[in-house]
Amino acid sequence: MSNLQKTKDSLESHRQQFPALANKAYFNYGGQGPMPQAALDAIYQSYEYVQRSGPFSTEVNAWVIKEANETRSAIAKSLNVPPETITLTEDVTVGCNIALWGIDWQAGDRLLISDCEHPGIIATVQELQRRFGIGVDCCPLMATLNEGNPVAAISDHLHPKTKMVVLSHLLWNTGQVLPLSEIAEAVRQHSHNHQPVRILVDAAQSVGSLPLNLTELAVDFYAFTGHKWLCGPEGVGGLYVRPEALESLNPTFIGWRSIVPSKSLPYSWQPDGRRYEVATSAYPLYAGLRAAIALHQQWGTPEECYQQIRNLSKYLWQRLAEIPSIQCLRNAPPESGLVSFKLKDKPNHQKLVEFLETQGILVRTINNPDCVRACVHYFTIPGEIDRLIETIQEFDG
Amino acid sequence: MSNLQKTKDSLESHRQQFPALANKAYFNYGGQGPMPQAALDAIYQSYEYVQRSGPFSTEVNAWVIKEANETRSAIAKSLNVPPETITLTEDVTVGCNIALWGIDWQAGDRLLISDCEHPGIIATVQELQRRFGIGVDCCPLMATLNEGNPVAAISDHLHPKTKMVVLSHLLWNTGQVLPLSEIAEAVRQHSHNHQPVRILVDAAQSVGSLPLNLTELAVDFYAFTGHKWLCGPEGVGGLYVRPEALESLNPTFIGWRSIVPSKSLPYSWQPDGRRYEVATSAYPLYAGLRAAIALHQQWGTPEECYQQIRNLSKYLWQRLAEIPSIQCLRNAPPESGLVSFKLKDKPNHQKLVEFLETQGILVRTINNPDCVRACVHYFTIPGEIDRLIETIQEFDG
Repeated sequence: MSNLQKTKDSLESHRQQFPALANKAYFNYGGQGPMPQAALDAIYQSYEYVQRSGPFSTEVNAWVIKEANETRSAIAKSLNVPPETITLTEDVTVGCNIALWGIDWQAGDRLLISDCEHPGIIATVQELQRRFGIGVDCCPLMATLNEGNPVAAISDHLHPKTKMVVLSHLLWNTGQVLPLSEIAEAVRQHSHNHQPVRILVDAAQSVGSLPLNLTELAVDFYAFTGHKWLCGPEGVGGLYVRPEALESLNPTFIGWRSIVPSKSLPYSWQPDGRRYEVATSAYPLYAGLRAAIALHQQWGTPEECYQQIRNLSKYLWQRLAEIPSIQCLRNAPPESGLVSFKLKDKPNHQKLVEFLETQGILVRTINNPDCVRACVHYFTIPGEIDRLIETIQEFDG
Repeated sequence: MSNLQKTKDSLESHRQQFPALANKAYFNYGGQGPMPQAALDAIYQSYEYVQRSGPFSTEVNAWVIKEANETRSAIAKSLNVPPETITLTEDVTVGCNIALWGIDWQAGDRLLISDCEHPGIIATVQELQRRFGIGVDCCPLMATLNEGNPVAAISDHLHPKTKMVVLSHLLWNTGQVLPLSEIAEAVRQHSHNHQPVRILVDAAQSVGSLPLNLTELAVDFYAFTGHKWLCGPEGVGGLYVRPEALESLNPTFIGWRSIVPSKSLPYSWQPDGRRYEVATSAYPLYAGLRAAIALHQQWGTPEECYQQIRNLSKYLWQRLAEIPSIQCLRNAPPESGLVSFKLKDKPNHQKLVEFLETQGILVRTINNPDCVRACVHYFTIPGEIDRLIETIQEFDG
């Protein structure tokens, strides 16, 4: 752990900027990230500005446009894409819904979804199936955590009528990182022989934890949130739409933000990602997300943060392996900050989570597969991991 | 103005609870209401609670459920409906979209919309027309501001294939209050002879300004926002769905909040208005909206607040009539807090609004009809109105 030791002093002062970390050992970054004080302050200052200069005025209306532009730009920069490709949303699920409902579905079209997607996304796909008479295929990725090939699992389930593939970049239940580049290439190959297949990525766990270059990755839709690994406020997320996919994705939920102001009808769409934004949002939160993004950038590059996450998740994975009653889902060190594990006997995971919470240690259960998930961020310290391990050992399930 | 004088002292201390009112004369309640300090404090305290006890933990997850329940209940109470009929949304436009996209549209169905609806709603209707091949009829209500009968204007445009009527309760451009009860009765009569017609009401301007009993009103969908007349934070609104209409309105944008947690598929919908909620929102804002609602209730009943609004808008309307260069859109005292007026000659309304803003007086322009809109709330004071009148007289357009 010497590379961790080196940064220990700067990390301690970095951690002090997160009030949530002061009174606990935190492992729920995949649920919600702690907000830095600078993000909270930026939000409070925005509220005070809006009240002082408005709340509704020419000045504040111009400020809202500027805030939204700066927020799309800050997000775009961290994803290595132009700002015009970004839509601000309430959360990752709204971003997925925009992509799912914006496709020109015809009866008989097929949608391919993995077996590791979030319940809310599965429910939307079920409703699309009911409304438009599309077919839904499911590819087994959970079984590829330790063996097998996720690219082949997906390719094998592509159908001549497949119109969309829905996948997470980083699986929320097992922590597996999908080889999205290879998957996109396999889907492109399939598209050459059939109709174009769009790829929607649920990036809830990847944005803010993996280094990303979406321009190179070349997936069509990449939906994310600011309140998990980016440590921004709950209620602000976004959607990346690849420029080539923009004109084929119809806006569904629509409002004054979607359209070009005009006295005449019919209205035309905004020329960029704003066409999927709807109406009034919690604008003062935008500054909070930008402050959180800026703080991470002060600490290191996305590659450095990711390397640190992997160092720490390897350490957590190794230490969990020392506990006889615990089995990690992965046989090898994790590729991400998500580490899922089971109690071998009497797997009462909810009881373990509640016990840990009484001890000031926050982890969560996952239903499918039935397990406990502990997440580490780049600013997790080995001492927190040691405390988690010791407290699990005290648990008498 | 003696009835205003009576409450002057208590009103002054009431007004001091709104920081935004300290440095200006405010007339943009129809755009955004000023937040009371108690609402700002409740928001800040919620953020601090979430960081202290989470941000993601069993405890905070239970708090989120409680906050949402209490917020639906507070809203429901003010609308005289059961809490189960309320869906929390980001804004009024999302509420309208839920209703518009949840109908089982078939090619050839018709939708009737008034000529006074907000651009964002019109744009959604245009997209429904394109996607589902429905017909759109438009009924002329703007012309009924001073003469004519809006109920007849609507009835005359109902068609045997009409499936939905889309109207505002309180027209955002002219301030006209539609006789919604009579309109609903006319639509019910039509429904008896044809297929059922659903009524969607854009309640952006009515919630928080008119006394409301939605149970008696018996419209199907009533979409509103917390950030205008209720003076809550931007980013929280809601939708009322009449119990009889729930099962026929399909959820469209869907997430984990819409469904009953289950390990098995397919998921089933939440039994109530939660089925139209999607995923993570800015939960700390909920306490802000409740604090704002509570503050209004401390001051008076909805009927008392509405009476005060009408006293003040009558005074504003009368004083505007004293200015030779100004013409109010209405020939009679307003039925609401929205007072729209024009410059008779050289109607450069944008320039007037900008001039007033330099003088600390906030009003806004409206595009259709081309006019200026000044709003009064129950806590507006005659002195503010006098200042607006005097400053308009100074304007050299």
